[in-house]
Amino acid sequence: MSDLTPAFSLRIPEDDALARRVCDHCGFVAYENPKIVVGSVVRFEDRILLCRRGIEPGRGRWTIPAGYLELNETPDAGAAREALEEAGARIDISRLLAVYSVPRISQVQLIYRARLLDPAILAGPESLEVKLVHPDDIPWDDLAFPTVHWALRHDAEAEAGAPPVPFGNPAGEAGDRLPDGTPVGEDAL
Amino acid sequence: MSDLTPAFSLRIPEDDALARRVCDHCGFVAYENPKIVVGSVVRFEDRILLCRRGIEPGRGRWTIPAGYLELNETPDAGAAREALEEAGARIDISRLLAVYSVPRISQVQLIYRARLLDPAILAGPESLEVKLVHPDDIPWDDLAFPTVHWALRHDAEAEAGAPPVPFGNPAGEAGDRLPDGTPVGEDAL
Repeated sequence: MSDLTPAFSLRIPEDDALARRVCDHCGFVAYENPKIVVGSVVRFEDRILLCRRGIEPGRGRWTIPAGYLELNETPDAGAAREALEEAGARIDISRLLAVYSVPRISQVQLIYRARLLDPAILAGPESLEVKLVHPDDIPWDDLAFPTVHWALRHDAEAEAGAPPVPFGNPAGEAGDRLPDGTPVGEDAL
Repeated sequence: MSDLTPAFSLRIPEDDALARRVCDHCGFVAYENPKIVVGSVVRFEDRILLCRRGIEPGRGRWTIPAGYLELNETPDAGAAREALEEAGARIDISRLLAVYSVPRISQVQLIYRARLLDPAILAGPESLEVKLVHPDDIPWDDLAFPTVHWALRHDAEAEAGAPPVPFGNPAGEAGDRLPDGTPVGEDAL
């Protein structure tokens, strides 16, 4: 490797219509695409699996197991992998709970309903703590992202008998703010 | 720009677990992620909108309007944009028809049901021809991709009264082959 450092400029490549990040040194075009987040609301009997985030954004706040889909991975396999990585949780996915869109950060989230196969859970390297909580004990004021609020609320509606049609964003919501109005990013799930 | 040419090696970056493409000149990590395809099965009265592809892969074969989601775009807006670009079609999206996964090429497809608002359609730059066909006249043997087969079949099931729950891949199918067994790529929708 030479001693250059990465340097990109926003330019419209030949045969393209939109500005892309083009390398100042060699002309490489770093195409960026929206990213797919996969996750799950995991239940064991009457309790729900939550993870306290060990990394930013949202360090110290609670979330459901979720993360970026990897190359060559199906979404349900990705959601199961994230549950294992973040909470040592072996899960059985039952169905698609929701498809959320957070366009500001170019994310599409596929969130599943799942059952925990074994209550032996363990915080992974990106979690400070994991636990199974009764729905009445969900720390609503201490959740990491708007989509975590939505997923837990929608899972409760599903549990209460809502038809098995995936939810989308709540009306008028784009995932930019927590319910108390705090602006929030979730660029680094 | 200097006179270097792009050159990447597959290496595992620090703080990472998987091999990524790393620039030989400056160390830039070109992360690659699965891509999101958005599309729609569009109906006008008792007919369905089809486009004959003007580009590879599948040039000359029939498809539904679909393509890659852009940055900062919601999936339904992306599906509507593709219908406009590929067929001059103004559409009204009703609901999510299917979520398909083609892991070999790292694609997740979100396919919607939609209604054509105005039968005046027009082939866009990537289409050779567009038309509205009666379901009995769908050219099943001349469709571009497995997921197009699935979407048209699932749309027919929806029309016949299947519950409004999104379909997934047909059992055992990974999107690698057309129904007649022909291997197929859809890397460049």
